Formats: sequence, structure tokens, C-alpha cells
Amino acid sequence: MQRVERRHVRYHVRGDVPPVLQVRPGESFLVETDDFLTGSVRSADDLATEEGTLPYSRSTPPRWNPVTGPVFVEGAERGDALVVEFERIVPDARGVCCIVPGIGPLADSRRWPELGDAATIVIEHEPGPSGTTRDGMAHWGSRTWSLNPFIGTIGVAPDHEVESSLVGQGVWGGNWDCRDLKEGSRLFLPVYHEGGLLYVGDMHGSQGDTEWCGVANEVRGEVVLSCGVLKGKRIPYPRLEKPDSIVQLYADRPLEDAVRAATTLLMEWLVEEYGFSPRDAYFLLSVASDFRINVYQMVRAGRLNYTVGAELPRYHLTT
Amino acid sequence: MQRVERRHVRYHVRGDVPPVLQVRPGESFLVETDDFLTGSVRSADDLATEEGTLPYSRSTPPRWNPVTGPVFVEGAERGDALVVEFERIVPDARGVCCIVPGIGPLADSRRWPELGDAATIVIEHEPGPSGTTRDGMAHWGSRTWSLNPFIGTIGVAPDHEVESSLVGQGVWGGNWDCRDLKEGSRLFLPVYHEGGLLYVGDMHGSQGDTEWCGVANEVRGEVVLSCGVLKGKRIPYPRLEKPDSIVQLYADRPLEDAVRAATTLLMEWLVEEYGFSPRDAYFLLSVASDFRINVYQMVRAGRLNYTVGAELPRYHLTT
Repeated sequence: MQRVERRHVRYHVRGDVPPVLQVRPGESFLVETDDFLTGSVRSADDLATEEGTLPYSRSTPPRWNPVTGPVFVEGAERGDALVVEFERIVPDARGVCCIVPGIGPLADSRRWPELGDAATIVIEHEPGPSGTTRDGMAHWGSRTWSLNPFIGTIGVAPDHEVESSLVGQGVWGGNWDCRDLKEGSRLFLPVYHEGGLLYVGDMHGSQGDTEWCGVANEVRGEVVLSCGVLKGKRIPYPRLEKPDSIVQLYADRPLEDAVRAATTLLMEWLVEEYGFSPRDAYFLLSVASDFRINVYQMVRAGRLNYTVGAELPRYHLTT
Repeated sequence: MQRVERRHVRYHVRGDVPPVLQVRPGESFLVETDDFLTGSVRSADDLATEEGTLPYSRSTPPRWNPVTGPVFVEGAERGDALVVEFERIVPDARGVCCIVPGIGPLADSRRWPELGDAATIVIEHEPGPSGTTRDGMAHWGSRTWSLNPFIGTIGVAPDHEVESSLVGQGVWGGNWDCRDLKEGSRLFLPVYHEGGLLYVGDMHGSQGDTEWCGVANEVRGEVVLSCGVLKGKRIPYPRLEKPDSIVQLYADRPLEDAVRAATTLLMEWLVEEYGFSPRDAYFLLSVASDFRINVYQMVRAGRLNYTVGAELPRYHLTT
């Protein structure tokens, strides 16, 4: 299997960078990803303080949120859609979460002043039934929960250059921190450049909705992907298919605008691909007991938008 | 079992109304609830047009969203908390959903103009394993999904009068349209008046997140409740306990303010009742793979706020 090494990380996503790998449609390939601060926070003693992170924040673009790539997919051309399959996501043996002074909803809390002080926790990743951490457990002191490894940042080279891999998001992809970009899911992205030019990074071992303190269980890892090309297929915004549901993604601020756009685009999807009348789609989303809005990420950082998904179980599609 | 009949509906919730029932703590009682337009929309031919709804909209307060009550709970005094157990929720044999002209996110859509026209659908409710509709299925034409009967509006008489049962929401309760106010859940409300003075109404047979078109599967029904009294227990905002999780509710606009308040109040709950340090609570919500934000209701109607819940599985509480 072809592999892209971790040293091929970048902090912007753009169309004029030579590919680091070329793959055929359907070919599985492995990408090594680096973590949110390029490996500089590895233990509880490594604090993401303002001084400590200056070398990362001061560069242009800032060296936060590295992505690996770009990967050239043969046959992909402007106007096509790229289908990315997440075949295997294996996080390293431990991840970290940080309180970064000045960042996060409670950084300036008077009630709990300690939430403005730099702190790092280490989260141990125990292998699961597969023998790897792809389906294992997270341990932090005496606390335990299931790992849910996913890819925080993924996209193709956009039509126009974006500010950085940290705050860039849009129809081309970006830093979504969407917990459903995981094994078994398929992501549909529009193609702007020959080969698509896919970037992947920012693996999270686990994360709650909103990514509350601004940082998740951040981890290096390896991801195995394959890409398909849908010729001439236009999509208004990236879509996600899970084994039992479909999810329309959207990133915007304020949060209700993201929710409205995702839900309206889901209606478009139902009308155009599943034969719904607009009225039936409108009614169904209002009365179906299992239509869900997922608030994947709601972090206030620069121009970063909030990420939501409008999710409908597949059985509704076949009536 | 004591019963409150449907005719005891009101359109405001306030502390100077004589109780229609008096119950002891722990006593089960049955409340008949009426539906969103007081039974005027019962078939696909009944349209919630502007002219048709004038008699309901023009009164003060408007006769939308009736609630039954108030119920006086013995021993409840200002400064206590009322614990409401949802023991049984049985919707009628059919519910309706409407497109109300001028209401809803797509009422003014140029792409889909028909979404501004009045329309009503009838949803048949089939009994489930219990022999009643409390655990049955919804049928709309050839479409089928699970019923999830819940109470859309519930609260105690507030400290100060609120505008109406339709747009009123606050620390005392209100029109939340929260799908987790269902059988097996326990809701904690603050008490402002002697007896608590509980109001209940606005049953929904099923509803998707956001209540997208502005109206759910609206239905008359019967609910069996019981109330406990926690003497001198102060809560900053109503809380909900489900069998396997705890949920901090909040209603506000914009949506991100509701999410931030619910999550911060959940942290307070973890710190004050479950022995978490603020820092541990802050980290946990950021990295726990199963911390969820529920966007229960996001309807733009008058001063109505959007309703969210911050939900954490119980196993996290015991470490």
C-alpha cells in the first residue's frame, strides 16, 4: 500500500502545491497525520502557553493544525465529485487535551479562574477487539470511555487560497471537527483542481459535541483512505453517508444559520436524489422522531465557523 | 386516580389562578391535554390559514398552545424544587402537522413557493407492544416511523406573569418542545408559589430536532404524572434526568448562547452534585465521545427562544 509520511505536513491548502502521492480511483492508501501542535505537546508537562506556542502562532500561516498532502487522484477533474472512504483510522497510543490560555469559552471565567490557566492532560488509548486503537478505549486517570477516532480536517485544494488549515472551512472541506468523519463513512467533496488534491489531518481520538474547551483528544495517527471519482457530479456542499444514515454538513456562524443551511440542503438532497416533493421533505423533517441535528464543533477561534450535520436515517429514503 | 379534564385549558401561566386539582407528593394523577390549536385542525381539510386562525391569534393571550392546570402539589413552597415524573404519555389515535402561511423557515421560499401555502397532513398512530400509542408507530401515507410521545410545554406558575403559553419560556419552564420530556424522565423545576402550580400541555406524538416547519406531530392526549418536592433545593435552571443520562436544558437566542449556557450549567451540576473539579468537568466534556448537544427546538415565532439540552451519560458521573 502506498504511504504518505508525516513529514509532508502543510498549514495551508491550495492548488499550486506538487502532490506527495498519486493514486488510482479505488486504491487504498495510508496517510500519516500529525497532531494539532505538530507534536510539541506530548506530556502533561508540555503546556500550550502563549510563550510556548509563539513559534507556532507567529508563522504565516500559523503552524497549528497540520494537514498531510496533497494526494492526487487520477481522473478527478474540476466539476467532478470526489468520494472519500474512511477505511481505517488508527490513533497513536496516547492523545492530549489542553487548556490554552486565552482560548475557550471559559478562559476568562471569574467563577472558575483556573480554567484560564494552561493545563495538559494525557489520555491513554487502549486497543480494542481489532487489536488496535481504532476501536479501543480512552483512559484518563480513573475515567474511561470509548474512543471514536475521526479526521478533524479534510478537504481538497479549494478554488481560492484560504487563510490557513486551522481556520479555513468551506465547500471544499476544512477544519470541521466532525465526529462522523470516521471508519465506515463516505464523504463527498467537489473537485476544483486536476487530481482533486486531497489534504487530511487533525485526527481526534475522541471528542464531545462542540469540542467544548476548544481542544479535543488530539493525536497523531495513521488513516487508510480510498477515493472514487463521480464524473460531472455537482454537489452544493459536502455530504456524508454513514452506514445507516445520510448527513448534510454545513459550517457557518451564528449556529442557527449553520443549522438552517444544513437542513435546507438536506431537503434539496431528498428532492433531487430521493424523489421527495419539497412539501413531503419539509413535513418529514418536522415530524420524524429520529431526525437529528449534530453540533459537531462550536469553537470560537478567529474566523472559524461552527460545524453542524443534519442527519436522517436511511429507512426514510426508500418509501 | 385523580384526573384533570381537557376543558381546564389556559393560554397563560400565572400564580393567581385557582388550582384545578390538588395532589400529594408521589401521587399519580392524569391530565388530559388539548392540541396546539385547541382541536380546530383535525383533518387534512382543516387548514391553519391566516383567516382560519384569526379567532385564535387575535385573543389576548392568543389561543395557541393550550396548557392544562394548574395542579397544586401539597407541601411545595417557594424555594423548593418540584420533581415531575413522566409516568405515562398516551397520544390520541391521530395527530396533525401543518404548514402555517407566514410561519416556518421556508414560508417565503422562492425556490419552493408551495412551502408558503397552507397544508395539513394527518399522522395515524398505531398502538405498540403496550396496546396503546405510548410506544407505537406513526404512519403518514406509506411512511412509517416510531412515535416518541412527549410533553411540549410544561412549567410551574412563574414569579412574574409571562406573555403567553405559546412564547413563554424561562427558568419556570415553558414551551420547550423537548423530545426528552417523555416517559421515564424526571424534570426538576423551581417553585415560586405555594403548591408549585404545575401546567402541562402541547403533547407531540413525534418531532424531529428543530421542529423544522414550525409545527410537530400535534396531538391531544393523556399524561400520567407524579410530583416530588425537594425542600429548600435551589436549581439555577430546570434539569432533566433520563434513565441513562443527565440533561441540562436551556432556552435562548442565538442558538450558541443556549448551547454555552446549557453546557456551563451542566459543569456547575457536575461540580456541585458529583464532586468534579471545574477543570475535570471542562476537560471531560471536550473529550468524552458521547457528550451530546440536542437542538430540540429552533422555531422563529415571536419571542420564542431556541431550546437545547447538554446531555452526559451517567457512567461518567460515578468515577
